Amino acid sequence: MEALIIYAHPEPKSFNGAMKDRAVSVLEDEGWKVTVSDLYAMGFKAQADGGDFAQRVDPEFLKYAAEQTHAATSENGFAPDVQAELEKLIRADLLILQFPVWWFGFPAILKGWVDRVFAAGVIYGGDIGMFSKGRFKGRRAFLSFTTGGTAGTYGPTGLYGDAEIVFWPLQNGVLNFLGYDVLPYFQAEAPSKTDDAGRASILDAWEDRLRTLDTLSPLEFHDLDDFDQSKGWTFKPGVTGRTIAQTGVGSDVE
Amino acid sequence: MEALIIYAHPEPKSFNGAMKDRAVSVLEDEGWKVTVSDLYAMGFKAQADGGDFAQRVDPEFLKYAAEQTHAATSENGFAPDVQAELEKLIRADLLILQFPVWWFGFPAILKGWVDRVFAAGVIYGGDIGMFSKGRFKGRRAFLSFTTGGTAGTYGPTGLYGDAEIVFWPLQNGVLNFLGYDVLPYFQAEAPSKTDDAGRASILDAWEDRLRTLDTLSPLEFHDLDDFDQSKGWTFKPGVTGRTIAQTGVGSDVE
Repeated sequence: MEALIIYAHPEPKSFNGAMKDRAVSVLEDEGWKVTVSDLYAMGFKAQADGGDFAQRVDPEFLKYAAEQTHAATSENGFAPDVQAELEKLIRADLLILQFPVWWFGFPAILKGWVDRVFAAGVIYGGDIGMFSKGRFKGRRAFLSFTTGGTAGTYGPTGLYGDAEIVFWPLQNGVLNFLGYDVLPYFQAEAPSKTDDAGRASILDAWEDRLRTLDTLSPLEFHDLDDFDQSKGWTFKPGVTGRTIAQTGVGSDVE
Repeated sequence: MEALIIYAHPEPKSFNGAMKDRAVSVLEDEGWKVTVSDLYAMGFKAQADGGDFAQRVDPEFLKYAAEQTHAATSENGFAPDVQAELEKLIRADLLILQFPVWWFGFPAILKGWVDRVFAAGVIYGGDIGMFSKGRFKGRRAFLSFTTGGTAGTYGPTGLYGDAEIVFWPLQNGVLNFLGYDVLPYFQAEAPSKTDDAGRASILDAWEDRLRTLDTLSPLEFHDLDDFDQSKGWTFKPGVTGRTIAQTGVGSDVE
């Protein structure tokens, strides 16, 4: 079983760095083969652009997803850095995204990894499918992050709002989109505002989480079959919402 | 009155490009002084790192927000590209972020603009404040974006989930965080799946929106005073939630 950790922090001595190091040692101890993409150390290019393709199908007008789809059917169609990440991703049974929450989301360098590597024609789209029919069905993925605020700040009475909502775009729109079983996120609460003992205790909880992955149930999302493509991917008649962002009822009325 | 458009699409002939061009001509016609940051054309660096500061307060350990705070009090403390964006931002009465929705959020290059330019010590934090006490109180900002899916896909019965939730991190976590009056977003629905007449009609609706900004009410968010910092920024006793992500009730109980 192979695990891939995408790690996005500019400071190797950061708490995110410590979490990444702990994850490598614990997962290896648990029998995983572990690969790390240390995006900052790699100088990973963040912006998606025309340079991501060996040959453009349309050099005059960049349609990024169309170029991805074309590159997917060509020998060495993607830029080497994208190709290398694709190969790691395709091998991985478990994907962990390790990052500091910046502005309620991924650091740009990690968003760029998503934009460039989750390629149409390889990872989703066309015959490959998406969501519950996605390519990575049966594999597991989750977010592991540090926050400046405590968990309450990310609650339904908190300043930032309910974490289920704050992280909906990442958990549903990125991980679930690809078909992964999305395990609950791990939040390291405000490691910069605690002491060494507090940080050690977060790392121990992190280790515990990593050793008990098999006991975790994936988050619940709707099956793709609940939606009618001909009605703009809305609920089929009678389907009722059962996620925080999907609370309506499907109607027969056009 | 000055408007700043942050524009993030790699293809100048894209629909996002047409929206940016229309916005410039309409806003100028309405009497605004308009500045555009065309992030791809500028080759804007997306990843936040130690190179963003002229001098590091701690060259051995990068704490990004601490370096921002330090740079804020130094002459030319920020890298020139960050400094230039800060100056545009500080002059702007109106901020428009123009982008294609990729993976439920900003393209990485735009996320990088946020990560690097919304600097602690200049734009938020310490004595500057945040949310309803944020620096840009009384100014206006909003998202303008294209989506591959139609509006229904971003509804409470849609595959992607309620747009209020999908865009909560951007509208609350980025724009409202800085104190802006956040105007409703403008969604250009699936311009790549319509014809020239359809696209012209979206651009006309966009022009109409831009000419009627003064008629729009900003989105409702909680006042910062609704939250108790000593309780991890959760509701004060008796405060009731009135946003989609804040639905609880403040309690007296510790």
